[in-house]
Amino acid sequence: MKGIIAEKPGGAEQLIYAEMPEPTLEPGDLLIDVRATAVNRTDILNREGRLGYANNPIIGVEVAGEVAESNGHPDFKKGDRVMGLVNGGGYAEKVAMPADRAMKMPDALSFEEAAAIPEVFLTAYQTLYWIANLQEAETVLIHAGASGVGTAAIQLAKVMSNAQIITTAGSKEKLDYCHKLGADTVINYKEQDFAEEVLQATNQKGVDVILDFVGASYWEKNYKSIAVDGRWVLIGVLGGSTVNQVSLMDIMAKRIQLTGTLLTPRSDEYKAELSKDFISKAFTYFEQGKVRPVVDITFPITEAAEAHQYMEANKNIGKITLKV
Amino acid sequence: MKGIIAEKPGGAEQLIYAEMPEPTLEPGDLLIDVRATAVNRTDILNREGRLGYANNPIIGVEVAGEVAESNGHPDFKKGDRVMGLVNGGGYAEKVAMPADRAMKMPDALSFEEAAAIPEVFLTAYQTLYWIANLQEAETVLIHAGASGVGTAAIQLAKVMSNAQIITTAGSKEKLDYCHKLGADTVINYKEQDFAEEVLQATNQKGVDVILDFVGASYWEKNYKSIAVDGRWVLIGVLGGSTVNQVSLMDIMAKRIQLTGTLLTPRSDEYKAELSKDFISKAFTYFEQGKVRPVVDITFPITEAAEAHQYMEANKNIGKITLKV
Repeated sequence: MKGIIAEKPGGAEQLIYAEMPEPTLEPGDLLIDVRATAVNRTDILNREGRLGYANNPIIGVEVAGEVAESNGHPDFKKGDRVMGLVNGGGYAEKVAMPADRAMKMPDALSFEEAAAIPEVFLTAYQTLYWIANLQEAETVLIHAGASGVGTAAIQLAKVMSNAQIITTAGSKEKLDYCHKLGADTVINYKEQDFAEEVLQATNQKGVDVILDFVGASYWEKNYKSIAVDGRWVLIGVLGGSTVNQVSLMDIMAKRIQLTGTLLTPRSDEYKAELSKDFISKAFTYFEQGKVRPVVDITFPITEAAEAHQYMEANKNIGKITLKV
Repeated sequence: MKGIIAEKPGGAEQLIYAEMPEPTLEPGDLLIDVRATAVNRTDILNREGRLGYANNPIIGVEVAGEVAESNGHPDFKKGDRVMGLVNGGGYAEKVAMPADRAMKMPDALSFEEAAAIPEVFLTAYQTLYWIANLQEAETVLIHAGASGVGTAAIQLAKVMSNAQIITTAGSKEKLDYCHKLGADTVINYKEQDFAEEVLQATNQKGVDVILDFVGASYWEKNYKSIAVDGRWVLIGVLGGSTVNQVSLMDIMAKRIQLTGTLLTPRSDEYKAELSKDFISKAFTYFEQGKVRPVVDITFPITEAAEAHQYMEANKNIGKITLKV
């Protein structure tokens, strides 16, 4: 079978679609005929050789496809349409997926749409609910609202919690899209001071929850934007990692909970439990069309390099998927 | 009646025992004849005029005493022995206490002992269980183990969770005392690198929970000491507030939850709920003598200045109380 690997650690041009050995199934694994996979920033780090924990030479952490071998598992049979996280190896014709994290696909969705769900919706669900404990009608600031996780988080926070949602993005087109997905207040971070806008939108109270993909360059404005007892979830450092002169007294004064998180390096058990909890709560929203995966563009898997370049140029609204 | 106020914001010498108006009862308040109160670092900040939220000119946030007027409350009658947090005014002959946070005193305890419970045991309970979600048999690093909160946290973590407890302190006497209270590993921070000792005591895993009273000067060593998915609770900045460089990627890589907290400025509802939850879980431990308040020394209330100086010299193991 074929799969995408990086010939050498480096740029997108290193990606090649090479003949690779079939995946080895561990007990409890399903063998999946991959129909679609999707691009994540972790894939870019992996391509660059910057992930310590990637064992599989084939890139890719999520797929949608059909069960090719259920390996005796009682809940799945050959031909079932499933989606889910994999431990690497997603950009390929076949992949092994632990059955306990396989999610049955909503009937209404195509494989390209379903491949756009696992990583970003599980991350949005995990950060909003497992980590930030978002409550009904609370306020949430979602940075990079037009990103994959952003578009998922806006929809979940609105439909599951009727949250007051404030998002930032860098273009009118992206902001309009966030608004359409359910954001109440949209802020162009290139033209507006988002902290001022957040305080105005919340009667100077600040937001209960921040999903922060940006890190260092937003530190002070995020601090201004958060309410007392706010939960600040750090899931990316696109604006740098190092913050100078952090005041711990400020963190105490606002009683802030700051949590750093990453999904990919977590344990199999965690991913299984998260997948189960998520799909049990969100499946009907997908079936009813109240929540939907946002696919910006789909490339054939042979053009994985172009797909990476597209993400690196920040062109996308929502997900970039690969058709296998 | 008389109460301790600061004549001017400043040092301990500013404290005087002055004739003051009787407390005004709000609906739901008990009037307490104070028998004992206790010294907290927040009292020192208050004396120095550094607390924005202190309205009562009389210093003091916790008392033990007898109910003088139950104000019609069905659960309390005149003469009941109670302890609890007050909204200022503790260093006095009488104080108003919201009934919903009054805790009945265990029979075995004197007033001086009971006055040593509310602030530090509620803080220890809140940080370990409400914030850090300490689980059975987890590992916890408790800095300033011989402090009021430290001595409370060691006992609670051991008796309620059978935790593996690592504490730091600055003298052999304090470390021996921590060990006697239940600490498994004791570290003299003046002589040992606590991060190295913590890693050795946890098979290089690090601790699940840190109670941090120190802040900036321990930042890097605390980071080294914490396990993946660790919860780091910041409740003091005795070692400074400003950290020169914080790496957000490090916080993400270890998936750390860093929470700043303070008890005194929290809402009445929060204090009531915390007091109820705490006493429902811990009352029997006090009755059985499995957990006990640690009183280092008791001063007469007329010597409140000496009591403050004693705390400022870091001489105490456990609490400093004032007999009224």
